[in-house]
Amino acid sequence: MAEPQSSLEKQFDSFRVQLEQSGTLRDRIRSVVSEIESSTRLIYATLLLVHQSRPTPGLLEKAKSQVSVLKEQYKELAEVLGGSSGQYYRYHGDWKSETQTVVSMLTFMHWLETGSLLEHKEAEEKLGLGSDFGLDVEDYLIGVCFMSNELPRYVVNQVTAGNYDCPKKVVKFLTDLHAAFRMLNLRNDFLRKKFDGMKYDLRKVEEVYYDVKIRGLTPNGETIGDLEIKEPEDNL
Amino acid sequence: MAEPQSSLEKQFDSFRVQLEQSGTLRDRIRSVVSEIESSTRLIYATLLLVHQSRPTPGLLEKAKSQVSVLKEQYKELAEVLGGSSGQYYRYHGDWKSETQTVVSMLTFMHWLETGSLLEHKEAEEKLGLGSDFGLDVEDYLIGVCFMSNELPRYVVNQVTAGNYDCPKKVVKFLTDLHAAFRMLNLRNDFLRKKFDGMKYDLRKVEEVYYDVKIRGLTPNGETIGDLEIKEPEDNL
Amino acid sequence: MAEPQSSLEKQFDSFRVQLEQSGTLRDRIRSVVSEIESSTRLIYATLLLVHQSRPTPGLLEKAKSQVSVLKEQYKELAEVLGGSSGQYYRYHGDWKSETQTVVSMLTFMHWLETGSLLEHKEAEEKLGLGSDFGLDVEDYLIGVCFMSNELPRYVVNQVTAGNYDCPKKVVKFLTDLHAAFRMLNLRNDFLRKKFDGMKYDLRKVEEVYYDVKIRGLTPNGETIGDLEIKEPEDNL
Amino acid sequence: MAEPQSSLEKQFDSFRVQLEQSGTLRDRIRSVVSEIESSTRLIYATLLLVHQSRPTPGLLEKAKSQVSVLKEQYKELAEVLGGSSGQYYRYHGDWKSETQTVVSMLTFMHWLETGSLLEHKEAEEKLGLGSDFGLDVEDYLIGVCFMSNELPRYVVNQVTAGNYDCPKKVVKFLTDLHAAFRMLNLRNDFLRKKFDGMKYDLRKVEEVYYDVKIRGLTPNGETIGDLEIKEPEDNL
Repeated sequence: MAEPQSSLEKQFDSFRVQLEQSGTLRDRIRSVVSEIESSTRLIYATLLLVHQSRPTPGLLEKAKSQVSVLKEQYKELAEVLGGSSGQYYRYHGDWKSETQTVVSMLTFMHWLETGSLLEHKEAEEKLGLGSDFGLDVEDYLIGVCFMSNELPRYVVNQVTAGNYDCPKKVVKFLTDLHAAFRMLNLRNDFLRKKFDGMKYDLRKVEEVYYDVKIRGLTPNGETIGDLEIKEPEDNL
Repeated sequence: MAEPQSSLEKQFDSFRVQLEQSGTLRDRIRSVVSEIESSTRLIYATLLLVHQSRPTPGLLEKAKSQVSVLKEQYKELAEVLGGSSGQYYRYHGDWKSETQTVVSMLTFMHWLETGSLLEHKEAEEKLGLGSDFGLDVEDYLIGVCFMSNELPRYVVNQVTAGNYDCPKKVVKFLTDLHAAFRMLNLRNDFLRKKFDGMKYDLRKVEEVYYDVKIRGLTPNGETIGDLEIKEPEDNL
Repeated sequence: MAEPQSSLEKQFDSFRVQLEQSGTLRDRIRSVVSEIESSTRLIYATLLLVHQSRPTPGLLEKAKSQVSVLKEQYKELAEVLGGSSGQYYRYHGDWKSETQTVVSMLTFMHWLETGSLLEHKEAEEKLGLGSDFGLDVEDYLIGVCFMSNELPRYVVNQVTAGNYDCPKKVVKFLTDLHAAFRMLNLRNDFLRKKFDGMKYDLRKVEEVYYDVKIRGLTPNGETIGDLEIKEPEDNL
Repeated sequence: MAEPQSSLEKQFDSFRVQLEQSGTLRDRIRSVVSEIESSTRLIYATLLLVHQSRPTPGLLEKAKSQVSVLKEQYKELAEVLGGSSGQYYRYHGDWKSETQTVVSMLTFMHWLETGSLLEHKEAEEKLGLGSDFGLDVEDYLIGVCFMSNELPRYVVNQVTAGNYDCPKKVVKFLTDLHAAFRMLNLRNDFLRKKFDGMKYDLRKVEEVYYDVKIRGLTPNGETIGDLEIKEPEDNL
């Protein structure tokens, strides 16, 4: 139709262009996010081997090489978003879940290496994030909760492998972490729910610690005989 | 605790402050949004009287006086968000639904007055929104869909009141609007769903128009033949 | 890990490759399907203008130019699937819904032009589909049901525009089509449901035909006065 | 009707025949699938006895005799589908769920016998499937997930029966399997969900292994210290 556009058509033509642009942008975000997810899967597959008591230093080294790939991918993500801070939260829903998983990997790796919590700023540094394109605090906290979920299984497998010293360390770490979270006034429903899960993680590692203690299992493998049997736990 | 804070405590202390701040901010946003909702309710209560065939100019005048209140409230909202465009989308979920309703009111008022669609820019002007704190295009489009939902009822009541000219005008307006929306590649599921509803609005007003035509009801009130007016169908 | 792959790893490595390949294939299918959807949207936007009584020949010509684009896109889709007939049904779910819409457009266009049903073979020809990559019969039938859904609205708008001859033609067409469908033993739940909807389309156009007849509205616009009023229809 | 068929009638007559044919085909598929389901139920009933610590070799022999019945049934299924690979995915939905169960039986039997994973190719051989009519990779993987669900219960019952060596073996097997799955980029939602369940299976067998270790229960039945056997936890 060669007839001149009406005012209505002109306006919707401009909407069409804007919606196409934001659609294209989201496609590009999704594409980078899918690469981030893929790197995270590789890191996780490597880290899972700690449950089989494979030597931690080797696993960490392998995982770290993927972290530098992640850093590149976050750089790409920041570029896709054009460094415009205004767009950060507009499309935040498209990558936040993957970023929370990334944080859980990083904090788990750091804990395996140092026994302490990777701080928010340190996590940002590892991913090359900063003031323009930072790591959302709630994403960081949710990632930390996810990391906590990994600890009961870790403790169980370490004890199975004869590392009776491990539960005490994890109980200490998780107790402090839980207490720190307690100070926060959580309004975000998702974060609050994840934090509630941390209570179960703590209870579970406390139970393992109790098992080890009551059986007198010491780090060097001696047992103090004649122990009573713990009742089976209820399976919730 | 007089003992020096651990690094963990320091970090969570800073999170506590940040979460308090964003919590306070959201409370303030919610408070303004609740005022916006209240103004919108007043406008809607006034506009609803058009269905009872009250004289439109008087109703519009009354509604317009509330729009200036709305403008003040959006100014307040912008101030609460500190003019920081980066925060716009962070808390967008807290006011977008109310803003869509506001748009539906404004576009309905404008249509009643002029018979044409209030444009996005004009809607922004009416609310004092601009480049720093603008009206999201999807919110505008969803608001327009909501406005369309009001039209079938309006047409039915106008015909009941003897305004046989009205259906033709509304069919024309809604057909053009529907065709304009058709050109958009809607990826937003909510918007797409609302737009799908517009098809039913259009079909309904077409049927009213058909009823009027087939009975030979003409704008100046003459009927062709000995026809009575069919009762408007129930609006489910 | 430089250690040789276990038999398990080797197998899953091959699965990984296969899943990547089928994932990539689906991405490519989706991309073509999204172009098909886009062309269909353009055709539909054009065809919708028949409801405003725009001259049909011009609209059909415009719509037909898009059909040749569609044909190219189906050729691309067939190429993506590698001409392997075995893959047709494997990924059928990824394009069948869009193809049903395409069929509804083609059959509507054909009906507007000829007053008869575009046959399955003719639809295949228009889309360049054939023995290797054909048009599924159920997709064709569902598309025909969708086309039928367009007819009540068309009839209403035609009568509004004074085309009193139209209802008779549509009633005849839809009655024959409905009777033909009746002969089929429909086991496909979706097709059966869509076919059930055709009954309502038929009823609606019959009612319009009745309105026109009872008011003595003849193709040349004369009315036979003194008619009784039809009761308002129930709105289901 | 002796009158010559219209073009419409002719076309629908041919559809009627085609739909009858595909309907008949599906009835035949359903009939074979129901026999396959019946054989699978017999195998499962036999295999379930391993949980009661019946001697595995006898059970396996009995189950194997049913596998040869299954093989005949898959041959019949392939014949029903006419060896036409194009039809494989057309009706895939009609037998895939039963085939996944078959895979879970075969892989469980193989694991009981060898301690290793029955490979995809081996599963195909056991069922007489091949290039023309193969075993879909995703069906195989889902079947393997189902098999994994059987292992926690098996381990618990084995330990109850005094087989303290079993948990270690199962942990090793399931850890490797889980790590292998981790490498896959799962886009199929159902498969992804089933795989997520494998994590719980693994955690459960790890906990049983932990119980055995912490109580010092050794494969040859000696305990360290004065420990009793903890009751297996309930399997919810």
